[in-house]
Amino acid sequence: MASINENYLELQGSYLFSEIARRVAKYKEERPEADIIRMGIGDVTRPIAPAIIAAMHKAVDEMGDAASFRGYGPEQGYDFLLEAIRDNDYKALGVDIETSEIFVSDGAKCDVGNIQELFAQCAKVAVTDPVYPVYVDTNVMAGRSGKFDTALNRYANIVYLPCNAENGFVPELPNGSVDMIYLCFPNNPTGTTLTHDQLKPWVEYAKKTGAVILFDSAYEAYITQPGVPHSIYEIDGAKEVAIEMRSFSKTAGFTGLRCAYTVVPKALTTSINGKLISLNELWNRRHTTKFNGVSYVTQRAAEAVYSPDGKAQIRETIDYYMENARLLTHGLQKLGYEVFGGVNAPYIWLKTPNGMGSWAFFDELLNIRQVVGTPGAGFGVSGEGYLRLTAFSTRENTERALERLRN
Amino acid sequence: MASINENYLELQGSYLFSEIARRVAKYKEERPEADIIRMGIGDVTRPIAPAIIAAMHKAVDEMGDAASFRGYGPEQGYDFLLEAIRDNDYKALGVDIETSEIFVSDGAKCDVGNIQELFAQCAKVAVTDPVYPVYVDTNVMAGRSGKFDTALNRYANIVYLPCNAENGFVPELPNGSVDMIYLCFPNNPTGTTLTHDQLKPWVEYAKKTGAVILFDSAYEAYITQPGVPHSIYEIDGAKEVAIEMRSFSKTAGFTGLRCAYTVVPKALTTSINGKLISLNELWNRRHTTKFNGVSYVTQRAAEAVYSPDGKAQIRETIDYYMENARLLTHGLQKLGYEVFGGVNAPYIWLKTPNGMGSWAFFDELLNIRQVVGTPGAGFGVSGEGYLRLTAFSTRENTERALERLRN
Repeated sequence: MASINENYLELQGSYLFSEIARRVAKYKEERPEADIIRMGIGDVTRPIAPAIIAAMHKAVDEMGDAASFRGYGPEQGYDFLLEAIRDNDYKALGVDIETSEIFVSDGAKCDVGNIQELFAQCAKVAVTDPVYPVYVDTNVMAGRSGKFDTALNRYANIVYLPCNAENGFVPELPNGSVDMIYLCFPNNPTGTTLTHDQLKPWVEYAKKTGAVILFDSAYEAYITQPGVPHSIYEIDGAKEVAIEMRSFSKTAGFTGLRCAYTVVPKALTTSINGKLISLNELWNRRHTTKFNGVSYVTQRAAEAVYSPDGKAQIRETIDYYMENARLLTHGLQKLGYEVFGGVNAPYIWLKTPNGMGSWAFFDELLNIRQVVGTPGAGFGVSGEGYLRLTAFSTRENTERALERLRN
Repeated sequence: MASINENYLELQGSYLFSEIARRVAKYKEERPEADIIRMGIGDVTRPIAPAIIAAMHKAVDEMGDAASFRGYGPEQGYDFLLEAIRDNDYKALGVDIETSEIFVSDGAKCDVGNIQELFAQCAKVAVTDPVYPVYVDTNVMAGRSGKFDTALNRYANIVYLPCNAENGFVPELPNGSVDMIYLCFPNNPTGTTLTHDQLKPWVEYAKKTGAVILFDSAYEAYITQPGVPHSIYEIDGAKEVAIEMRSFSKTAGFTGLRCAYTVVPKALTTSINGKLISLNELWNRRHTTKFNGVSYVTQRAAEAVYSPDGKAQIRETIDYYMENARLLTHGLQKLGYEVFGGVNAPYIWLKTPNGMGSWAFFDELLNIRQVVGTPGAGFGVSGEGYLRLTAFSTRENTERALERLRN
């Protein structure tokens, strides 16, 4: 018998969104006529912007012509895209990032799932709670979690940092030292974020303790308020302690096109037996060994996100979603719900009524209102008693969902 | 200081193709006017077939329209593609594979790199030698290789199965038991393959010992001779012991579009403490947790590979490359070289003249003939004294390369 990775057996139930899909499919099977409004999974609904569509058609034509055909590209991404990222996402913020510090990939889920490979199996992991399940599950698979404690509903070796209404969704620094800290701001699932001054102590903590911050900024494009950093590298010294992961999925509707990137600064080092180790080099080695680049057509699409037309068009779509967020927030507040997020993020974090459990509220919404949310408990213990709604629906469905909740 | 994955430090030098790229770039820098013919990296040169281009344009348009826009697809791939794979790549061979046993991904390199995650860290790995470096390097990163022995030029805990002219490129079964066996037939880099009767003992060995065969059939489309299996599942009982990985890269020129798939049969199980473990379930869990599906545009492209026009057009391209292989083989033989492969694979495995080392011969070809091959030694100890040439060039460059070798 082949020896398999027993860490997988420590995984709890199925992946959250698969479980939701299962429940919805079951309901659909029983009530095929049901008109379900999906506000659960964080998937966009607006089409790809015209400037991006035009860039893709052009790239497709290039692939059909021997003179312009492209085979394997650089695993890290083409220069045209790396330079667009550097100039628009960093230089524009006053942050110097070199193109060799940027690694284009086929998705932030892949990157946040794979990044843990750079760390030792004994590395200590801290996550905010509630949390995007991929951070935890990929560390369980790697054997870093320890056993699952069914009483606590948590893994023994993972450090959980609660974020809830009580602490204003600002987690406390870990008690003691850890190796890896996953931070996601603007946050999925709570829709809340940290200001520059609130993020700063994390960089200082990491510098002091040697921890590495894995900063997921997939929702950066949804920030509307000043004082909220668009990149962790806006904090002094962050290049020495942080890896940043960003995606085109929510910024430009690429969930079906697949493009993201990870920044691993060269200043980020650690040492083993006195030997300096560059995490940029380690990630480069991983990326070139286990990955073969993103589709050329998709990379040209991503480049077009930064064109003048592309920028204007994706801004329009983001504004559309954020108007949904505003409608949801105000509508729900009018109905007496306690609501968080929705200002710098496309997520509304709803307190369940009367202390109801998350999954019970999920089932009630599905069965009675035919509205699908995401149970907060699926994101961790501190998510219990909350439900996530997304602003990614159409305007019509957002309004219809509110209407159903009203009745 | 964060604890990092020290296994990475056991990796030897840089990834083979990066090293080749580096040497070529250096040469180009010194001799910018040099007209280099690249027959090193196994990359295609012919454009994407018209039927596939048409399918991509259609898919791009769908993404630009709210009514037909697609966000996240199933991580495992859309049914339209899974069904095309099942029917064309398996049912047509008389092999029953369910769509839920097929996992579409963004590349065979990713799949062959990631598949090892399903196995225990203590799992024993066997590879043929020479071998595609990804099999070995990803197991080094995972801590399965043991220390590198610089005298032997091999890792202490990896079982190497030599394939060379002496044994007719038919490896011997491992001596003792192993957990994972990587097999690639038609083989990269040697271009040789196994007949049905030669592959059968591997399935029998795996059934007897409980080993899992990781079967890379990326070059299946290049098989021209009868008696050579197109899938390992043509061997009785293989579904109980083998995972098969196949790619659109070489079949349809998708190296720049990124699509592949892995088959993990439900009959493939192992057990832990008497509990039956399905590798299909484990891989499904990995795939849904660390991956988010392939671009919809690419999946429609892959579907078109199986259309009547698509099939005819890709066959024409494969025949074109195989004519290059024939020209190379015969041309080199005429020049007195000993040549293997090239009949059921797009690779020519050339014995270096006068017992010259692989890298020395590589440098000589680059410096004197401006022809880039891949040094056999880069694929393992048993590759020393060989050089790989690919048939993926244009006809013109194939003929020019031969001409240069003649002079």
